[in-house]
Amino acid sequence: MTVTVGVTGATGRMGEEVLAAAADRDDLDVAFAVSRSPGAEVEGVTVEDAADLPDLLAENRPDVLVDFTGPSACIEVATACAEAGVAFVSGTTGLSEGGFDALREAAEEVPVLYASNFSRGIAALRRAVREAVPALDGYDIELTETHHNAKRDAPSGTALTLLEDIDEARGDSPRVHGREGEAPRSEEEIGVHARRAGDIAGEHEVLLAGNHESLLLTHRAGSRGVFAAGALDAAAWVSDRDAGWYDFTEVLE
Amino acid sequence: MTVTVGVTGATGRMGEEVLAAAADRDDLDVAFAVSRSPGAEVEGVTVEDAADLPDLLAENRPDVLVDFTGPSACIEVATACAEAGVAFVSGTTGLSEGGFDALREAAEEVPVLYASNFSRGIAALRRAVREAVPALDGYDIELTETHHNAKRDAPSGTALTLLEDIDEARGDSPRVHGREGEAPRSEEEIGVHARRAGDIAGEHEVLLAGNHESLLLTHRAGSRGVFAAGALDAAAWVSDRDAGWYDFTEVLE
Amino acid sequence: MTVTVGVTGATGRMGEEVLAAAADRDDLDVAFAVSRSPGAEVEGVTVEDAADLPDLLAENRPDVLVDFTGPSACIEVATACAEAGVAFVSGTTGLSEGGFDALREAAEEVPVLYASNFSRGIAALRRAVREAVPALDGYDIELTETHHNAKRDAPSGTALTLLEDIDEARGDSPRVHGREGEAPRSEEEIGVHARRAGDIAGEHEVLLAGNHESLLLTHRAGSRGVFAAGALDAAAWVSDRDAGWYDFTEVLE
Amino acid sequence: MTVTVGVTGATGRMGEEVLAAAADRDDLDVAFAVSRSPGAEVEGVTVEDAADLPDLLAENRPDVLVDFTGPSACIEVATACAEAGVAFVSGTTGLSEGGFDALREAAEEVPVLYASNFSRGIAALRRAVREAVPALDGYDIELTETHHNAKRDAPSGTALTLLEDIDEARGDSPRVHGREGEAPRSEEEIGVHARRAGDIAGEHEVLLAGNHESLLLTHRAGSRGVFAAGALDAAAWVSDRDAGWYDFTEVLE
Repeated sequence: MTVTVGVTGATGRMGEEVLAAAADRDDLDVAFAVSRSPGAEVEGVTVEDAADLPDLLAENRPDVLVDFTGPSACIEVATACAEAGVAFVSGTTGLSEGGFDALREAAEEVPVLYASNFSRGIAALRRAVREAVPALDGYDIELTETHHNAKRDAPSGTALTLLEDIDEARGDSPRVHGREGEAPRSEEEIGVHARRAGDIAGEHEVLLAGNHESLLLTHRAGSRGVFAAGALDAAAWVSDRDAGWYDFTEVLE
Repeated sequence: MTVTVGVTGATGRMGEEVLAAAADRDDLDVAFAVSRSPGAEVEGVTVEDAADLPDLLAENRPDVLVDFTGPSACIEVATACAEAGVAFVSGTTGLSEGGFDALREAAEEVPVLYASNFSRGIAALRRAVREAVPALDGYDIELTETHHNAKRDAPSGTALTLLEDIDEARGDSPRVHGREGEAPRSEEEIGVHARRAGDIAGEHEVLLAGNHESLLLTHRAGSRGVFAAGALDAAAWVSDRDAGWYDFTEVLE
Repeated sequence: MTVTVGVTGATGRMGEEVLAAAADRDDLDVAFAVSRSPGAEVEGVTVEDAADLPDLLAENRPDVLVDFTGPSACIEVATACAEAGVAFVSGTTGLSEGGFDALREAAEEVPVLYASNFSRGIAALRRAVREAVPALDGYDIELTETHHNAKRDAPSGTALTLLEDIDEARGDSPRVHGREGEAPRSEEEIGVHARRAGDIAGEHEVLLAGNHESLLLTHRAGSRGVFAAGALDAAAWVSDRDAGWYDFTEVLE
Repeated sequence: MTVTVGVTGATGRMGEEVLAAAADRDDLDVAFAVSRSPGAEVEGVTVEDAADLPDLLAENRPDVLVDFTGPSACIEVATACAEAGVAFVSGTTGLSEGGFDALREAAEEVPVLYASNFSRGIAALRRAVREAVPALDGYDIELTETHHNAKRDAPSGTALTLLEDIDEARGDSPRVHGREGEAPRSEEEIGVHARRAGDIAGEHEVLLAGNHESLLLTHRAGSRGVFAAGALDAAAWVSDRDAGWYDFTEVLE
């Protein structure tokens, strides 16, 4: 059976990738796509106005909505999905605590799957990090992420997820976002570095160093297509679940 | 209580590091050091003739012998230790199957701890590899190791250990040591690349790639001191064990 | 004025990229595209039979032909262009000496521009290599290239170009394509390592090491689109030149 | 003829390396060594009190003084050398504009050679950067440097030198030292990232990215020994020059 999908942020970088990936799949149909810059034709789909989302959800009744927008739009979309009874998948980054609360509230009505990153490689990186950190107790940790020059928020959502994984493995650590001038390193701190350059799809590197050796755990996305494909995997998987909060690792298993 | 240590290969790169690391520790005393090029003074120890090893073991009765020699010398040293009742720690690489058999035979008489690499970072890398490989089923794997230009065997002992870890995780794979000319890649093969340059202490990188993404798991030794320190940790740990075969990961736990 | 372009190898990885890049440009029109697997529709162009190339050149009289095929097809295409008086741009790798002779012969009749790599970044890498190699006289050099698992020839054409640059800077060096078993490094040799994994678009790294330090000069292609765009730049540039042999660096200046 | 050398900062990381490197050379003798923590024995030299430097210079009259201290000590040492007529070599980082003025003033009396980094590899990196930056006009640049966790100033002196090289090649750029929160990248800015971890001797990486490709120019120091050896090369070279300001690249030529 074909799953029908609505797409928000359709003229953004990730939204376009989602529409391109959907066009290549037989198991999914795009019901509609919206953006704040409506009118464009993306992968054969005419993009409609984001302001009309509630009406479009009511008319089209898609199985699931896939959202790559911004922190405030994401909350509105999640709320509209909860009201319309449509499953919600989002990879929007930069959400505040309040933003996550709004998503959790939506999860009481409909299935919600949020991931800062929809790639199998990132899931594997996280597993590697959770193994390596406790094995190198006392080593210093620095995290470096590199993304295209149009990414506005820092650090990336995936970097934040990795930092949470590290904190779980060895306790909470203060984070330092860049160093300049007199900047002695405290033993516990984690340096977090956000590089922005060109059209790099995304790289994350966790460095552990001590005792005359270094361990580097690095993920490199070859294109944003990898995230779009994963988001659609998640959409297909979550479309017929019960209301609740789901994780991308559940999709992989 | 102080552990007494004999050292073989004392004028080699690793032997010198072992003597330097031992000089910095209070819990270990060097009983003697031998080499095929005797006469030199290394870290305050006069290096004796490797041909006299059986006599030196009998006279000095050290608690443990630490060996970084070559594939054939290593067997002779292990046999001499088994006869003298002295625990044996070795990081000699390039051993044949027959060489490992000889070490296992010695382990029936005395404690034997063999490791292709005595670093915590490599132990952590192996754990990361064993997590990541099954999580990225179907991705291609390539292994690259880089060492100083005087290293004669390829691939490194550590690379072979990592290849065994990979085989355990996803079944035996054919290995390709370099590619030239018409060289199509088979789906199952693992490319193994040995770089030799300068005085690089040692780098190992496992690359997993597929689906528009790559995961790189990399260990970099800052100096051979990290291996010498680990070998002495192993020597102190194994010195009062029963006869048997031990693994470096047991030392770390 | 619009430049008209014929495309060979149109159903191959690079051929598809060339057609996609051409569709995005206003200064170029695709006159026809051929492949040994005709019939497909690629970016709105119906791919014709490569066997009909001479007829298609005669009928359509494109300004320039862009070729990404294989070593033997490339010679046939160059010869057909020379006969039809059509400028020829090729990025086909794996050519033998005889293949280059055939291209040079064609260059007596029409403009021919051959490049193993059509990227500005590779041109910059080559300049960096030509500066660094003489500055680090006596350091060991190793070259590593990484490409997708469907690439059949090794090393890559770009790697061979870099090796020529290195030889020009410090004299001819023997090349070693992988090391296994007892493999001592000679002082002069250059280790050349071809990694094949996933769908990596292309990475080249020149490592210079000695005196307790390393210099790494690395180029990473984010997608094959970078090469297609460069090949079309070259096509537009060469289309109205006189017969002769041209280099991609001339296009960049 | 043997060159006699005084050493400041003798109990610091670099001071110890300088004394170790000097002990290995026949063309240099250590006249004295001072530190703010006097009394220690370093490589067979008893370290004297830094407060006595003027007297020690007057008594021993060394040919040259080698200085790795801190920003304020460095000025005092340079002034004392100018007064005593002793050539001055320094690799102290973190100097202010005023600090450099003081060194330039000393250069009116004695030969002064200042370098943020005494390695051939860094000199080669700088040449590579000066070639690559103009060849990739319009690409984004990010600079990442990684050093041991005891380094207090950021970015490293070598990073600042590289930034000056980049500014010379394409005009002055604003610099951003870390990014957090809403942090859109301006077209001209250079991101500068200082990682601090373990006992990493020093790594510098210049990343240029654009047009679906990246160029990475990376230098990795295997140990601080490489800098100490270069500083002593500079000391031997500068010891019999006329008063004036000298550059490390002159030593290499």
